Parts: sequence; C-alpha cells; structure tokens
Amino acid sequence: MRIIVQKFGGTSVATKQRMLVALGKVRKGLENGRKVVVVLSARAGDTDRLLALSREWSADPDPAEQDVLVATGEQVSAALFSMLLRDAGITARSCTGGQIRILTDGVWTRARIQSIDAQVICGLLQEYDVLVVTGFQGVTTDGRITTLGRGGSDTSAVALAAAVKAELCEIYTDVEGVFTTDPNICARACKLDRVTYDEMLEMASMGAKVLEIRSVGFAKKYKVPVRVRSTFGDDPGTLMAQEDQGMENKLVSGIAYDKDQARITMRSVKDVPGVAAAIFGPLAEAGLSVDMIVQNPSRDGVTDVNFTLSRKDLKRAQAIMEEVRGRIGGVEVLYDANVAKVSAIGVGMRNHAGVAARTFACLQAENINIIMISTSEIKISCVIEEKYTELAVRALHSTFGLDAPEAS
Amino acid sequence: MRIIVQKFGGTSVATKQRMLVALGKVRKGLENGRKVVVVLSARAGDTDRLLALSREWSADPDPAEQDVLVATGEQVSAALFSMLLRDAGITARSCTGGQIRILTDGVWTRARIQSIDAQVICGLLQEYDVLVVTGFQGVTTDGRITTLGRGGSDTSAVALAAAVKAELCEIYTDVEGVFTTDPNICARACKLDRVTYDEMLEMASMGAKVLEIRSVGFAKKYKVPVRVRSTFGDDPGTLMAQEDQGMENKLVSGIAYDKDQARITMRSVKDVPGVAAAIFGPLAEAGLSVDMIVQNPSRDGVTDVNFTLSRKDLKRAQAIMEEVRGRIGGVEVLYDANVAKVSAIGVGMRNHAGVAARTFACLQAENINIIMISTSEIKISCVIEEKYTELAVRALHSTFGLDAPEAS
Repeated sequence: MRIIVQKFGGTSVATKQRMLVALGKVRKGLENGRKVVVVLSARAGDTDRLLALSREWSADPDPAEQDVLVATGEQVSAALFSMLLRDAGITARSCTGGQIRILTDGVWTRARIQSIDAQVICGLLQEYDVLVVTGFQGVTTDGRITTLGRGGSDTSAVALAAAVKAELCEIYTDVEGVFTTDPNICARACKLDRVTYDEMLEMASMGAKVLEIRSVGFAKKYKVPVRVRSTFGDDPGTLMAQEDQGMENKLVSGIAYDKDQARITMRSVKDVPGVAAAIFGPLAEAGLSVDMIVQNPSRDGVTDVNFTLSRKDLKRAQAIMEEVRGRIGGVEVLYDANVAKVSAIGVGMRNHAGVAARTFACLQAENINIIMISTSEIKISCVIEEKYTELAVRALHSTFGLDAPEAS
Repeated sequence: MRIIVQKFGGTSVATKQRMLVALGKVRKGLENGRKVVVVLSARAGDTDRLLALSREWSADPDPAEQDVLVATGEQVSAALFSMLLRDAGITARSCTGGQIRILTDGVWTRARIQSIDAQVICGLLQEYDVLVVTGFQGVTTDGRITTLGRGGSDTSAVALAAAVKAELCEIYTDVEGVFTTDPNICARACKLDRVTYDEMLEMASMGAKVLEIRSVGFAKKYKVPVRVRSTFGDDPGTLMAQEDQGMENKLVSGIAYDKDQARITMRSVKDVPGVAAAIFGPLAEAGLSVDMIVQNPSRDGVTDVNFTLSRKDLKRAQAIMEEVRGRIGGVEVLYDANVAKVSAIGVGMRNHAGVAARTFACLQAENINIIMISTSEIKISCVIEEKYTELAVRALHSTFGLDAPEAS
C-alpha cells in the first residue's frame, strides 16, 4: 500500500475556505492510487482560546484535565475536515489519537509518543482512502488523553509516517519552506530545496520555527523524508532527507540566530577539581539547561567560567549562583541578559576547513565583538551583543554566498 | 460502595461561577462516604455553536463526523469541572464515553445506549471520589464516537445510575422540579413532590421539557429513583419513582399540552378492508409518525378518518396524502395546522371513573370544541383549536384541584 502523510497547520485549517485549499492537496496526494493520512492541528486560535479558558478556571490548571480540554481543538478540525472530504466524494473518516492507538507516556501537556499501532491504521486504510488524524495528541496505555506540547502535530505526522512506512511526509504550513535565514531580518534569504536532518536539527534548535525539533529527531531516526511546503501555492518547498552522498554539499546551508540567551560569567574561580561540579550541579538540579560553556586556561591558579542559558531562566539562575558564590568564595559573578547567538550551519563544513576563520573575519569586519564561541561538526556559533544580531546575520548570510540575486 | 449520580445541564455549567455552585452539590453528594458520578452537558450554547459550525461547513454534514464534532462540547465541560474539583482538593478525573465504555449502537446523532461497563467505573471509583463523565455520548463497539441526541445527557445519567446501582440519580437543572403544568401559561401551577415513571412518561412525551423521555423509560425499566431539582437553590425538587402503593394517589397529577400538532381529515373514505393500510402505510414508509387516529363508525359504507401528526411533518404528509387520494379515489382531504392537544395525566385515574366526563364538561363550560379524543389508562387527551390551548390548560388545572393556593 502506497501511503503519504500530509500535515496541515492551524492557519491552513482556520476557515472552510482554507480547508478547501488543503483538500486540493489531499486530492493530489491520492493520485497514483496512494492513500493519504491527514494530520491536523487545531484551527488557528482554538488552542489559545482553550488554554485561556483553563487559566480562567484555575490559577494552576490540573495538567491532565488541561490535556482533555485542549485536545478538543484538533477533534473539531478533524471532524470538520472529514465532512468536507465526504462531501467531495472521498471515503474518509476522522480518528482521534486514542482510536488509532497513538500511545504516549503520561507526562501531561508534553507527552512523548511511545508507539503507534500501524496495523490499526493500515486496516482502516483498506476501508477508507483518507484518514484524518487529530495531531498533537495521544493516549496513555490506560486510555487517558495526552498532548504532545506546542508544535506536537509535526511530531504526530512524522511518527505516523514512520509507523506506516509512508513514502513521504508533507508538512503544509504558511511558509514556503525552510529558508537560509529569517526573511524578516534578511531580505535576501532564500528558500532551500534540500536540507539534511542534521542541519535541520541545528536550525530548529536555534530558533527556526518551521518544524518542531522533536519531529526532526523522529524523522532522522526513522529516515522519514519530509517535505515542508506552503498550503497556499504550488511550490515544492524544502525536502528534508538524509545527506545526499553523491552531491557536493554547500559549505553553509543557513544562518540561525537566537535572542533567548543570557550569559553568566564567574571571575577568578580557583581552578581545582570539583569546581565545575560545584557550579553546574546546582543548576542541573534546578532543571536549568545550560547551553554554551567556555572556560579560559587557568592563569595563576584561577580562571573565568562563562556560560549561557535561556534568558527566561536567568532570574532563577541568579539566585542559585549567589548561593554558589557564597560556598566557593572569592568569586565575582556577572550577569548579562543582552546577548544573542548567531550560527552558521552546514553539513558541508565537515569536509572543509576555514569556515570558522571566515565567520570570525566576517564579524570582525563589521566591528562585532565575539564574546563566546562554540563549534560542532556542522555548526559554528558565536555569542555577541544582542544589538548586533541582525547585522551579524546579514553579514554571515552574504559571506557564505547565501544571498538571493538582487531583484532586477 | 454507595454511589449517587448527579447530572448538571448546560445552564448549570455555563460559567465558572455556576460550576462552583454545582461543585457545592457534589460536596453534599459526597457526604456519608458516598462516591459521586457527575454527568455533564455541554456548556449552554456550545452545542448550538458546534452544530452551526457543521452547517457552515456542509449543507448536509456527515452525521458520524458531526458526532465527533459535537462531542467536544461535553469534553470541554468535563475537563473544566474536573479542574475545579481538583483545585477544591477533591480526587476527581474526567471520563469520556469511550473511556468508561458507554457502548451504543451506530445510529449517529441519536444513538442508543447498549451497555455500560460498571466494572470500569467502579474500579475508577476506588481511586477517585468523583468521576466527571461527558453526558450525551458514547462509542460504538469499534470505538467510534456517537451522540445520543438532544437531551441525551439525562439518558446518560440514568443509564449510569442503573449500571452502577446508584442509590439516587439527581438531575440538576434550571427549574425547581416537575410542575403540574407549564407555569408560563398557568400562574397557579405547583411543583410536584413525587411523580411516577408512568406519569412522567406521559408528561415528557406531551412536551414537558424537564426530562428527556428516553431517560424516563430507562429509569422505569431499571427502577432508578430520579430527583429533578434546581442547581440554584436547596429545594428537594421532584422525586420520580415507582408508584407508592400505600398512598392514595391524586386523580390527576398534571395537565400537559402540545402545540406541535396538525390534523388531517379524509372524508368519505370507502369503509373496506385495506383502506387503513393504504392511508397509513405510505406515511410509515416515509418515516412520519402518526399520533392519534380516530375513525367514525361507517355510514352508507363510507367513513371519515381523522389523524394527527407533528406539525413540522405536515408538508411532507400532504404530498403523500395527495398521492393516496389519487389512488383510492372519491375522497376529500382536509389539512389543519391550527390544532393543539391538551391532556390530563394521573395514575389515580386507573381506579376512578368519571375523569373523562369531568374533562369534557370542563372544556364545554369554556365553549371549547373537542375535535378528537384519545384515552389511555392514565391519560385523557383532547385535540382542540390551538387558540384555546392556554384557556383549556388553566381550566383543567383548576377542575382537577391542582391550583396552588392564591397568594394572600
């Protein structure tokens, strides 16, 4: 059985007119005898409305019941879309997460998919040409409703595609695909035709909002080809797939940035064993996730420790660091909420030297001071003063040859 | 385990403030170590909003998908109410029809309950003091969502009470109980302290809107004591139970009326075998339900056939009757949409003669012409001109001693 999965986001199902546009995509999906599993988000605004309702009802809404409440949003979308399909003469039905046994753990509001019963789905696909599945949700083994957290419909779609061995997972959204950088700050950003899972993982975690990061991890793990494209046009969008060995990869595929950054500096820390644990142990215990860590080589037995974390965690981190400072003594702690991270990402840099040097030279040419640096196999990230973010992104975009040709 | 079932209607759960009033009733229900199964309707307006949405999406919405859509209304109520209970320190959770296996047939939009798994519910009641069940819905044996039709939450509540052998089923609504007649047209209507299942069956089918008729049938079949009472007061309301053998029953318990009536008269029908089938067969085939049928004794081999049906079916019935007239020939057919039915109801009339005579005399005294009459063991119904409805109800209410004492 040839199956494709098509996921439509909230803006693509917001109105009847938009759903009819999505229906056109389903018709195309059905060509060549394929079956289509449609995965829907709640209609734009519905999830926010339901969350607002829960906050109106309770200062601290029970998370299990919040999931029961919020899950109605996708159920509404799925029912309405199935009505349209049936009116169009397509054999279709809606399926909730529970009905097709999308099993998750019991971590309310951000559950993780454990398994999907492909047999149930394939059995239904004998009877129906299209199944319309509620995204974003599943059930625990004892049948309680869970939700996967924001953006969870992407994960639902990719996980379903993996389970039924779909030939393609199409993510329909309101953008044309994955871009070399954020078009809002760089007018010459281009749509990418292809992107690898690894590049996308770096881009998603760096704030590219096209795909939820968990869905990218899923796609990579199960080698699901994913096409990100717009509901409101015919552009083929961006194909996310494995690295294509036969092709020359571009050195850098995209420039990402993240303003949700804060930096903490500990000056004059005694460079003795156990000091890193004394600093980062209490942060980890508090559930605060540290991003970059840079420690200068020791001089006169003391060193500086620099690290970054999410800006919204800074206040909690400050309280913890003051305690740490009291314990280890003689240390000065500085906090800086006005930093951002810019990154150049590309699988091509694996086989090419000099990307780091070009990055630094580019920023230096713009008089942008690099506060911290971290590198991975396919990424170079620099922490800079936040006010330079847009300038840095545009400069790097140009340096690595990503700029679209100027409009004539 | 001592269990009571409490059902709250749409107006009782419309806002957080009202839900908090309902929560007070649940607390009372929990006294003496009892467990409470709460059954909720959708919040007032939600079901209508969802139905309007489905009509906006489709001129003829797929009924299975309409059920999936509309069922979200009760799910929202149940989740919100469970949040409040948990915030109040009560161990509670929401349950959908599927989760506690309320199994129905597959007749979408008006499914009938086939079975309820009491073991599942009683198992959950070991863990929770309160279960908040979505009324109005169930699932088919293969797990598809069904709804029971308008007023179905009453049926859910009574069926649940029967399944778990609850000591009482309380139906909380926005009226104080069951009245001797409609207080809107008879200021001296009184609340009844008790009513039998049979009386309630007649009253519900005659248009008393307090309880959905299927729920009354269920209650009678499984001998579930049901108390109808207001959410917004402490009045004990009306207890619906079996006939109390030890007590003298009132002759007449209530006066019902129904304006959803139309009359069809066939004049000069040849009184030969098969003529009734020729008339009523086509109506039954078209799914039109005929209420009263009166045939005068034949004179000169011809007779008149009078019958009533729901006024909204009159147009469809007319088309059918014109065909019938063509087939059986020589018949005149008259249609009258301006009739109503008034009924005196009471188990007491079983053992007392003269109720019919008093009914006719009362109407005659008011110069109300009786067009048709039908009687059952506990009911006398008269079809009259619609414009006399209110007058007839008040006159009969007074004749049978039901009037409340005049306010002093």
